[in-house]
Amino acid sequence: MTEAAAQVEFRTEPSRYRHWRVTFDGPVATLTMDVDEAGGLVPGYELKLNSYDLGVDIELYDAVQRLRFEHPEVRTVVVTGGKEKMFCAGANIRMLAGSAHAWKVNFCKFTNETRNGMEDASAHSGQRYLAAVNGTAAGGGYELALACDHIMLVNDRSSVVSLPELPLLGVLPGTGGLTRVVDKRHVRRDIADYFSTRSEGVGGAKAVGWRLVDEAVPRPKWEAAVAERALEIAGHSNRPIEGHGVQLTELVKSRTQDEIEYRYVSARIDRARGVAEITVLGPDSDAPSDIAALHEQGADFWTLAMTRELDDLILDLRTNENEIGTWVVRTRGEAARVLAYDALLLEHADDWLANEIRLYLKRTLKRLDVTSRSIIALIEPGSAFAGSLLELALAADRSYQLFGVFEDIDPGAEPAAITLGPMNLGPLPMGNDLTRLQTRFFGDPDALAAAQSAEGKALNAEEAERLGLVTFAPDDIDWDEEVRIAVEERNSFSPDALTGLEANYRFVGPETMETKIFGRLTAWQNWIFTRPNASGPDGALRAYGTGKRADFDRKRV
Amino acid sequence: MTEAAAQVEFRTEPSRYRHWRVTFDGPVATLTMDVDEAGGLVPGYELKLNSYDLGVDIELYDAVQRLRFEHPEVRTVVVTGGKEKMFCAGANIRMLAGSAHAWKVNFCKFTNETRNGMEDASAHSGQRYLAAVNGTAAGGGYELALACDHIMLVNDRSSVVSLPELPLLGVLPGTGGLTRVVDKRHVRRDIADYFSTRSEGVGGAKAVGWRLVDEAVPRPKWEAAVAERALEIAGHSNRPIEGHGVQLTELVKSRTQDEIEYRYVSARIDRARGVAEITVLGPDSDAPSDIAALHEQGADFWTLAMTRELDDLILDLRTNENEIGTWVVRTRGEAARVLAYDALLLEHADDWLANEIRLYLKRTLKRLDVTSRSIIALIEPGSAFAGSLLELALAADRSYQLFGVFEDIDPGAEPAAITLGPMNLGPLPMGNDLTRLQTRFFGDPDALAAAQSAEGKALNAEEAERLGLVTFAPDDIDWDEEVRIAVEERNSFSPDALTGLEANYRFVGPETMETKIFGRLTAWQNWIFTRPNASGPDGALRAYGTGKRADFDRKRV
Repeated sequence: MTEAAAQVEFRTEPSRYRHWRVTFDGPVATLTMDVDEAGGLVPGYELKLNSYDLGVDIELYDAVQRLRFEHPEVRTVVVTGGKEKMFCAGANIRMLAGSAHAWKVNFCKFTNETRNGMEDASAHSGQRYLAAVNGTAAGGGYELALACDHIMLVNDRSSVVSLPELPLLGVLPGTGGLTRVVDKRHVRRDIADYFSTRSEGVGGAKAVGWRLVDEAVPRPKWEAAVAERALEIAGHSNRPIEGHGVQLTELVKSRTQDEIEYRYVSARIDRARGVAEITVLGPDSDAPSDIAALHEQGADFWTLAMTRELDDLILDLRTNENEIGTWVVRTRGEAARVLAYDALLLEHADDWLANEIRLYLKRTLKRLDVTSRSIIALIEPGSAFAGSLLELALAADRSYQLFGVFEDIDPGAEPAAITLGPMNLGPLPMGNDLTRLQTRFFGDPDALAAAQSAEGKALNAEEAERLGLVTFAPDDIDWDEEVRIAVEERNSFSPDALTGLEANYRFVGPETMETKIFGRLTAWQNWIFTRPNASGPDGALRAYGTGKRADFDRKRV
Repeated sequence: MTEAAAQVEFRTEPSRYRHWRVTFDGPVATLTMDVDEAGGLVPGYELKLNSYDLGVDIELYDAVQRLRFEHPEVRTVVVTGGKEKMFCAGANIRMLAGSAHAWKVNFCKFTNETRNGMEDASAHSGQRYLAAVNGTAAGGGYELALACDHIMLVNDRSSVVSLPELPLLGVLPGTGGLTRVVDKRHVRRDIADYFSTRSEGVGGAKAVGWRLVDEAVPRPKWEAAVAERALEIAGHSNRPIEGHGVQLTELVKSRTQDEIEYRYVSARIDRARGVAEITVLGPDSDAPSDIAALHEQGADFWTLAMTRELDDLILDLRTNENEIGTWVVRTRGEAARVLAYDALLLEHADDWLANEIRLYLKRTLKRLDVTSRSIIALIEPGSAFAGSLLELALAADRSYQLFGVFEDIDPGAEPAAITLGPMNLGPLPMGNDLTRLQTRFFGDPDALAAAQSAEGKALNAEEAERLGLVTFAPDDIDWDEEVRIAVEERNSFSPDALTGLEANYRFVGPETMETKIFGRLTAWQNWIFTRPNASGPDGALRAYGTGKRADFDRKRV
């Protein structure tokens, strides 16, 4: 097995990219994938034919984020390839074949999140993605195109789109492919079946007729057609042409083996107990007085700074610390300040930057929702679980709010309170398109109404428990024991079963393309990844490229 | 590993039951689970504490079916336990621990289908299920109660409901448990998390407060309270008090190693190609003239007889022939007759028997939808793909309709046609609550409308292909080669990847509790079943009851 790099680092910036180029032309940005074969994140494979690994996707994620914050003028993002003939060959197969199960799954999850983020930009930021497929898009390469709003394919008798995972590798197109083909592009299910079981792909008019792409353009007209379409799409956007971007300055982070520290977010890892103790600080000063001051603060604006740190922390812990199965989340600060920052963002919901900050917080909380770690929120005196920070408790699998105070530590403290704010009532939906509050009270409209009517009120433990907003409200005498047992128990259970439990309970009620990708599609793919028919010594994933034929156990399950 | 019985037989009837008693008292039937410890389907385990295996569930399925057809007078079905203290301990753990992966998965699927069938009776037949939990309901035992409409728990300080799968066995409550707790009973997700991670369960008022059960009744009042509630529920039903049941006479079946034959349904197994060639015959006589004649025919009425045979065939092939990965489906007969039988059923939709027959056909087609086999429909001259039988082609992953005729075989034949009828437009929804036609044209309302407007018209291959109702329409010259390649290719792919592909493509669009159970919950459970943490030599499932502690790989995936 290829061993993962000691520590994977998600922070990057354009001058350090090895695999992507970003160029700008007025309202159109072009993201060109031009993978450095020798630039694999981990030794053991070459990134041939514009195939990608986690390192390539980390750069894509960074680029997508920067386009939203640093480039308010960009209304269309063209995604294209920098190689001859091959737009993108998908995830690198030798990397997949050589990776441990947990690595494969984590890699796919991040890839999915980045693609969902592109769709989020198309839908909510007026920054629409256009796939300019200037060669063959195979597997994950086509899935990248599927995440775009509009797909153009060069029509040159050799370029095709394909999903050859099943016939060639014995796995699924698992980063959204199966879901988007039928649920987004509305390819008929029998045609989709045929398409996904033939390795050779489909190009030209047939690809258009089957809805796999939106248009097929002869090579001589290609560049003009892409440029024209990009401008046309840009013309329909409500994103400001003018406006200054906010630079995403380098995230300051210190990382030792067991401590990760940013300005507002920190984590301490307790390996014996399998726990990361995460603390998120509220704002250390009052909210800026107006939207101009928010723009002025830019990346230093608390919500944005805190969200970036939290995002990086989630990715770091998920990738580098997969034996740390429980995340205990605390907050500290002044609830009123958190609510004031929230209010500023919501008052200026039509300001592009305020909108981007809220959307980024939404995506980061969604990342938490799909994280396969148990999350326990501890609500103690001095905490700031209000509005946007209260979402952390609502995202948790379980929450404990101290009834009263810690008599030994600070008998004069203000008892812990939580406060619902407008951010909890709509602006931060989960992947199922419900708020975390609606998800919590799914099927119980009276309880939902009762909780919502407490908006703005600092709720002590008794009130919060009665309203169903926290799970338990032990007092000082029971607190340590109850919390200790909860955490220890969690660490004694099967990590796999917990992952399955959480993936089911966190997403009650309606399903969306997003929950289907992370729930149904991912679960089937994970199952297939564990099966000898894919990952065994004679499995298709391991046999690919060796000249050997995969030897399948033919039992249907 | 415990080896499966040579052939599992799904046909049974009450006089042969070993594990269930059925008693009747006016509008109330009582199903008492009283499992014979020595009556396991396969050697190697004892069915202690009212635990169950596939054999126990086969009897339950039979009883549920007979209640619907043979007992129009039954309006409430009380499900209770025949042992002291233990209502039902769930699936037998030694059976699970000793079973091969495919056996576990197939067993869970059938269990799920039977429970969905109970909910179908509650929802659509005026035959509502009441769980009278007269002892502890653990794991699958509680999941059985969850499938009922109303749950009563005896309040005696020892009886509890619990989902101890995660803490004790390292697997999920995978036969609907996780889904129904939050999506049906609306237990809050953090409470659900707590409940499903403590092995000791919850009883009395707390179980009511957490919505896990509907009422907790002290033992002295138990029998009277159950009887009263059963009658009260019966009073709200619109099922006829009068009326004669239809006896489900023994299904006549001949089974050799490679041939399965019923009156209207047959299958021929080709092991070398991994194919079952299934043929379904249309009615061999005209539809009865009126509803009285339908009642007179009873189990001989074509739709009911054919559905029972198809149901048994699906179960037989799924359980006994798991290396036969492709089902090729043909029909033969007169389309007009099929449509006439359909019309009779729909004209009398308010007749309880006509309603039951349609619902049974609906459930059987749903069973096909969740079957992990590739389904290819071949539409040839002499076939009868119309109305209810056309659903077989619409359920297929791919369909081929011959353009013209087989010149060598019967040049004067009438070319193959398909005909949409009213049965295709609503009465037979899939698990996603859409018709197969709506699923097929999901996101394409124009194509759906065009297809629907062809209702009643015999469509030749060209027309059917143009309307998108069949996948391909090869002519005589290409037919053999195209079909052969399709079948051979299917047999060359990874069976696991095909299962994942089909599970995704067959259920486009909205999700329901049912699709979540078969999609998300089942996929996670299957993944967990394959993991060493559950099924390895030191996994929790194997360690249970041995006194050894499971030894977990702590990596979160």
